[in-house]
Amino acid sequence: MNNTTDTPVTVIGLGLMGQALAGAFLAAGHPTTVWNRTGAKADDLVSRGARRAPTVGDALAASPLTIVCVTDYTAVRELLGTSGMPLDGTTVVNLTSGDSAQAREAARWAEQRGVRYLDGAIMGIPSTIGTAEAVILHSGPQADFDAHRPTLEALGAVSYLGADHGLASLYDVAGLAMMWSVLNAWLQGTAMLRTAGVDAATYAPFAQLIATGVAEWLPGYAEQIDRGEFPAEVAALATDARSMAHLVEESEALGVNAELPRLIKAMADRSIAAGHGGEQYPVLIEEFSKPYHS
Amino acid sequence: MNNTTDTPVTVIGLGLMGQALAGAFLAAGHPTTVWNRTGAKADDLVSRGARRAPTVGDALAASPLTIVCVTDYTAVRELLGTSGMPLDGTTVVNLTSGDSAQAREAARWAEQRGVRYLDGAIMGIPSTIGTAEAVILHSGPQADFDAHRPTLEALGAVSYLGADHGLASLYDVAGLAMMWSVLNAWLQGTAMLRTAGVDAATYAPFAQLIATGVAEWLPGYAEQIDRGEFPAEVAALATDARSMAHLVEESEALGVNAELPRLIKAMADRSIAAGHGGEQYPVLIEEFSKPYHS
Repeated sequence: MNNTTDTPVTVIGLGLMGQALAGAFLAAGHPTTVWNRTGAKADDLVSRGARRAPTVGDALAASPLTIVCVTDYTAVRELLGTSGMPLDGTTVVNLTSGDSAQAREAARWAEQRGVRYLDGAIMGIPSTIGTAEAVILHSGPQADFDAHRPTLEALGAVSYLGADHGLASLYDVAGLAMMWSVLNAWLQGTAMLRTAGVDAATYAPFAQLIATGVAEWLPGYAEQIDRGEFPAEVAALATDARSMAHLVEESEALGVNAELPRLIKAMADRSIAAGHGGEQYPVLIEEFSKPYHS
Repeated sequence: MNNTTDTPVTVIGLGLMGQALAGAFLAAGHPTTVWNRTGAKADDLVSRGARRAPTVGDALAASPLTIVCVTDYTAVRELLGTSGMPLDGTTVVNLTSGDSAQAREAARWAEQRGVRYLDGAIMGIPSTIGTAEAVILHSGPQADFDAHRPTLEALGAVSYLGADHGLASLYDVAGLAMMWSVLNAWLQGTAMLRTAGVDAATYAPFAQLIATGVAEWLPGYAEQIDRGEFPAEVAALATDARSMAHLVEESEALGVNAELPRLIKAMADRSIAAGHGGEQYPVLIEEFSKPYHS
């Protein structure tokens, strides 16, 4: 396969994100075919050199690689299922938001129709597409990813996670959980410090330093999880829990929100109640791995 | 004041942390006087060159600077209040764990007795004391910190936060909230990925990358909080909330714990209900700054 910027590519779905994706392909020099249910959304792209496909089938036939970015997985199936053409040999990279079960189901459906299928997830906003700030995750057959990687790289920092089609959406939501957790912990600290007249800008570099420093521990802590042994090399969970009590009490005394501190403490307390007070923090994987209903 | 390593220093309280503190002063060459309620805890330090004070009063008189690291603030006051000596001119750095109200109260109490008082908090474990890994926070009069900084630097990476004696403990618990939040978000993601057979070591570098990347946003986001204006320059909260729903649903579908995802979504939903769906994430400071009772 020819992987220069001469490689034609198709983008189906021209919401804000789809338009950004097609725009990045155009900017990189790829002959770009576009299709959208509401045709007017293609106008700007066409003025920048994109080719407007009259039908989904035509859009799919125009390029060896088609990017799909629509509302949901139901829309993906309707589009591809009604394209009225054999899809054999076409590669579809589906960047539509969905969960891991939908991604795996779509992969089975595609396989039955001879479509080469990769599932993807975009960690970034439309304005970052085409830059290294947009991280685009892919999962599915590695050969299909490798074949199209040079084309996909026009969209941002691409990465391949593994053959399981569910991985892209799992990494995506896991990464979002980290994003919101860092932001929430920073907001918690900011709220606490503001009671003492410390402004957010003064506190932020400290929060950044702690987040970055703790993140460095993760690969080492991961080894404990993979071994299934949690010796208290750094500190015992029971010691952590005493500091968690300080955090909860201080939040309550200051009159700020204490839900996040209480959840932190509740999960540790449950692990201690299960006999893990003398072990190290990553033993909490046992709590995080099962549902809890209060 | 002479701030070479000839400067004498006293350590009161010889639990694991107090022993580490005294050991670091000894290792740096400071003439070190120690005192502990249970005298035997000083034996090892004495064998390494420390001087054992017969009474608290003698310990305080031995050095221009005394570090106190005991069980709680009640113990601090009992010790200093019964030392039976004038404390005028002595500088006490209190590294005992407590909350901001206790720190401010201790500062008032010390001021009445002519004690120069700094409140501190240790972010680190005993084994890191004496290295840059131990971050030691100080708050109180800057002149007193500056006068003893060279001596205090024997203990680790020291930092001065401001005149309000409550700041050290506030930064401490805020930093801990960040620490546990990064760890919990990582555990959440690890639990999710393990359902797909991805081991913890494989996922950890991705979690580290996200945490570090998001931490870089904090100084910029802080400006929105200090201005009190939250234009959706990157993304609107209502858009975030749709991804939060994915995170909650995926966690539930996988059978892992969903409490952290649900809390993330609940706080955003409340902010959206309050009319902030079109603003940017840091607007959540309004939710974090007030108590919530379900």
